[in-house]
Amino acid sequence: MARKEFRDLATPEQAHEAIRSLSLEGGIDRVPLSEARGRVLVTRVDAELDVPGFDRSSLDGYALRASDTFGADEADPARLELVGEVHAGEEPGLEVEPGEAVEISTGAVMPPGADTMVPVERTDLEDGTVLVRTSVAPGDNVMFAGADVAAGERALGPGTQLTPRETGLLSALGVDEVPVRSRPRVGIVSTGDELVRPGGDLESARGQIYDVNSYTVAAGVEEAGGEAVLYPHAGDDPAEMERVLREAAEGCDLVLSSGSTSASAVDVIYRVIEEQGELLLHGVSVKPGKPMLIGRLERSDSAGRSAYVGLPGYPVSAMMVFRTFVAPAIREAAGVPEPETATLTGRLAREERSEQGRHRLLPVGVTTDGDGEYLVYPVDKGSGATTSLVEADGVVEIDADTDYLEVGATLEVRLFSPDRRLPTLFGVGEDDPTLNRVLDRLVRPRYLPIGSRPALRRLRTGAPDVAVVAGPVEPDREPEGTELGSWDREWGLIVPAGNPAEVEGLESLVDRDLRFVNRTTDSGLRTSLGVALAELADERGQDRHDLTAAIDGFDLGLRAHESPARRVIAGEADVALGLQETAERLSLGFVSLGEQPVQVWAAADRIDKPGVRELKSALRKKLE
Amino acid sequence: MARKEFRDLATPEQAHEAIRSLSLEGGIDRVPLSEARGRVLVTRVDAELDVPGFDRSSLDGYALRASDTFGADEADPARLELVGEVHAGEEPGLEVEPGEAVEISTGAVMPPGADTMVPVERTDLEDGTVLVRTSVAPGDNVMFAGADVAAGERALGPGTQLTPRETGLLSALGVDEVPVRSRPRVGIVSTGDELVRPGGDLESARGQIYDVNSYTVAAGVEEAGGEAVLYPHAGDDPAEMERVLREAAEGCDLVLSSGSTSASAVDVIYRVIEEQGELLLHGVSVKPGKPMLIGRLERSDSAGRSAYVGLPGYPVSAMMVFRTFVAPAIREAAGVPEPETATLTGRLAREERSEQGRHRLLPVGVTTDGDGEYLVYPVDKGSGATTSLVEADGVVEIDADTDYLEVGATLEVRLFSPDRRLPTLFGVGEDDPTLNRVLDRLVRPRYLPIGSRPALRRLRTGAPDVAVVAGPVEPDREPEGTELGSWDREWGLIVPAGNPAEVEGLESLVDRDLRFVNRTTDSGLRTSLGVALAELADERGQDRHDLTAAIDGFDLGLRAHESPARRVIAGEADVALGLQETAERLSLGFVSLGEQPVQVWAAADRIDKPGVRELKSALRKKLE
Repeated sequence: MARKEFRDLATPEQAHEAIRSLSLEGGIDRVPLSEARGRVLVTRVDAELDVPGFDRSSLDGYALRASDTFGADEADPARLELVGEVHAGEEPGLEVEPGEAVEISTGAVMPPGADTMVPVERTDLEDGTVLVRTSVAPGDNVMFAGADVAAGERALGPGTQLTPRETGLLSALGVDEVPVRSRPRVGIVSTGDELVRPGGDLESARGQIYDVNSYTVAAGVEEAGGEAVLYPHAGDDPAEMERVLREAAEGCDLVLSSGSTSASAVDVIYRVIEEQGELLLHGVSVKPGKPMLIGRLERSDSAGRSAYVGLPGYPVSAMMVFRTFVAPAIREAAGVPEPETATLTGRLAREERSEQGRHRLLPVGVTTDGDGEYLVYPVDKGSGATTSLVEADGVVEIDADTDYLEVGATLEVRLFSPDRRLPTLFGVGEDDPTLNRVLDRLVRPRYLPIGSRPALRRLRTGAPDVAVVAGPVEPDREPEGTELGSWDREWGLIVPAGNPAEVEGLESLVDRDLRFVNRTTDSGLRTSLGVALAELADERGQDRHDLTAAIDGFDLGLRAHESPARRVIAGEADVALGLQETAERLSLGFVSLGEQPVQVWAAADRIDKPGVRELKSALRKKLE
Repeated sequence: MARKEFRDLATPEQAHEAIRSLSLEGGIDRVPLSEARGRVLVTRVDAELDVPGFDRSSLDGYALRASDTFGADEADPARLELVGEVHAGEEPGLEVEPGEAVEISTGAVMPPGADTMVPVERTDLEDGTVLVRTSVAPGDNVMFAGADVAAGERALGPGTQLTPRETGLLSALGVDEVPVRSRPRVGIVSTGDELVRPGGDLESARGQIYDVNSYTVAAGVEEAGGEAVLYPHAGDDPAEMERVLREAAEGCDLVLSSGSTSASAVDVIYRVIEEQGELLLHGVSVKPGKPMLIGRLERSDSAGRSAYVGLPGYPVSAMMVFRTFVAPAIREAAGVPEPETATLTGRLAREERSEQGRHRLLPVGVTTDGDGEYLVYPVDKGSGATTSLVEADGVVEIDADTDYLEVGATLEVRLFSPDRRLPTLFGVGEDDPTLNRVLDRLVRPRYLPIGSRPALRRLRTGAPDVAVVAGPVEPDREPEGTELGSWDREWGLIVPAGNPAEVEGLESLVDRDLRFVNRTTDSGLRTSLGVALAELADERGQDRHDLTAAIDGFDLGLRAHESPARRVIAGEADVALGLQETAERLSLGFVSLGEQPVQVWAAADRIDKPGVRELKSALRKKLE
């Protein structure tokens, strides 16, 4: 079947419109009150009874006739005959006549004849006579039937989301089951031969990766008030994919798939939609999200249709398109409006250029400056990176006409999670095990291990609070700011346990035929290695580049402090650049090449930010 | 057993301290990733593998050697031999030699030999030869193994609460089960002979009421990150109460009970705590909350102890004490910090006086003024009222030294529910069925049916946005503000179906021996009745008071518009004041006494508040 042609890309507004037209509403659930928290009432609840259902004493004391206490005071108490008692949960067995009083407890039914009560503190009891030392008016300290809620009153309106307080009011009305909106059922179909469900075995040589989107989108669906249903992974087999898609359509109000970018996958989705449903839109002028697919899938039992939306494959792209286009529709169907806190307004920390002509979704991180104002910075790791998921807090929409945003521009951020729990600290710099332990002591820190040099650059741009720098720092590149703390770490060459190749130092690396694994040039370890090699070159009267050229693997740099060591474990290298601590932790051999300082620098205007103070104090404790 | 004496009431800070000392932490749960949303990591998660696990093509195109493209451009493409293809999820079956290219899809493994890739858009294919129309550098469009997450990197810190994004990162790392903090188990024990669980039959004559606190507190526990366990209602039987308390202590980290104010109930709680545990505190200098009881219950298996806190009995008091003292401890134990949005700062709308010498918890409602600033007003229905639960948004603490708060004072409000969903509209006034239908069309309105006259008074104090007034308004009491809309309603006497007593009008009520049920003096219906009786008195040349005195039940006023009619249904009255619409809805007879206007007035400074605009438009639609 030929693919339907959509000549022009749809606008973002047309995509919103198409999704709105899908109508994701489920039906009505009747749920027990104890499970109703967070659900949304379908209909108005009017009170079916008076609360309280009887005239009720508000205090412990005596029920009596007000007229019997007129003129009574401390000095001249009214004297009434005690004729009985009534407790909460009891039917009064007697009537109060003039001159009489009945002992009554809080919450008990006012006995007939009594029109008021006096609290026990204002009375004395003497041989069966109650001395009332105050005068009371009719109705004092009595809650009349219906005074709290009167039968027929509007108690809760349709669309009310049930918090503990509404639960309380419904309990008072005796309601133990409530009609609430069904949560929209959202089926999640994952396709692609390369995807493996977390927990499964990964064959990296075959290019397999773990399936990220299924779980991320499922959690996003639940957060938006929907019910997520994960369908078995379909791979790229067209027949199996078609079967899974149809099964999901039968069982769900909405089916989401992500990626499925391979031609065969798109063909299957097209076939299912075209044969049994309706394709509303393919291709939106938004980056990312261009290949978005929106349609309806007919159900075999003719019980309506299921909506279908195809999301991009890269996790951050999928999340941004989900957040921008799909989550609002699920919330609408679930009757759970977006909390006010789901958006915030902040200033852009560094300039951003955009290609003109395409609406853009920009993943951003949010931090606060020294004055507690929100600072917004683009997360630019590339949409293929899953780490961007936790590095970005939300998405900014940039319209097609904007090609440049200046520093300080005011932006509206739609947060990925509506309960605004932003990081308390934003740090960048060297990957270091001591630092990792310090970070463990902080509440919600964000730390991006981008390396020492880029960290100093970014500290100057104004977004991060702190930069962590390892190794020698050139004097003219001294960080601007305040040093919060520093420590030394021993670095050198990591070798297999027992050092079977008898590596002795840098000379071995240069002079012998060893497979080496380096760190990236951003890393302070690499800088120290460079300095050591330059010294060795000086000693030998050789050129430094001849030395590095002699090292097999010198140009292959890995990002994290443990990665080179793991290559040694895997037998893919004989020697790796690394830390003594790493070698010890992984039970490997180690040849020391020296110590290098690790310094934590804070931007000058962030010294008093609570997260920075916390870091300073954690550093002090750790380093003591 | 004698009760332990606590000579002085504890301070609120001592109560916080005592609860903190109880240590409510549970253990560690291992949960599947798909059920981990909102849970809190116990330990740090480091990456156990590189992501991606292989050098990965970022686009569709051709994998090749960068050196083969040096100098290539649109006019002078490099010409490479196409030697094969590699798709996502496949192991490359060949090596790329100089002068060769391999077709590669997004996400596929880079074949050995190739050090870069060129996107398909920059190429042409001619008879097995790839024309590359641009030069590329090594590494272009390739995500190297570990570039996203490198093995050994710190991925997520301990204490991280898992949102969809963290779920995504964990998926990428292949983690399908995570160690999270157990949610503290909180047992809820309800006592009191007068309590009936919602859904059960209520005997009002015996003074029974529905159990409000169990469900409210349970929902509050869940909201704070705990797991609520409702134990069977124990009544006031000491042996049964003791059994339930002990059972709850065995199974829970914390046991809460509320009310249990009867002497025998307190005795049982004392006995259980004293015999098997430790009483930390009884009595706190806070209003409400004075009788608060804090202690530990020993478990029979010596597997630690359960904490115990006794809450006040009145629902709003219980909620305020729970919110102030208990919820923070549950959150701490669950590792779920309070969202920033759980508190807000606003101005006091009307002055408030306090008794000096006792720390006070004041239930407040929150609304916004015309400028969108928060206005805070005390909810003063009395703590016995369950409706206060939905009328209050949070609690303000007033310390023991403050006896007066002036209008405009800045207050910090701790909201009952942390997701700040405040009412969009705050209205007060007449209870009216037409109005109820209009309210049903609005999103989160708050409407307090306090009657017409009090509504006009409160509109002037500045908290409400609108007042709804029924019946004749005296010229000098004309509301200040703008009328948003009005309609007429037919009022009169509601009688049993068929009007068996042949009531003909006001004369019947005055001259015959009929049991009448009135509305409260606040109600516009009552005002209209008063006017009609005054006219009748004029006609007859009689005193108005003689007429009202002749009506049996004239002084008994009920609050809601349906309540009097329900007395007629119950056979407790022959005639009730009410609306034609009510009579019709309840299939009762009706004798018309006229029509009265219902007017909706908005405060002058709220005309442009979104909720008021919404109301105005809903009124227009309704009344058209």
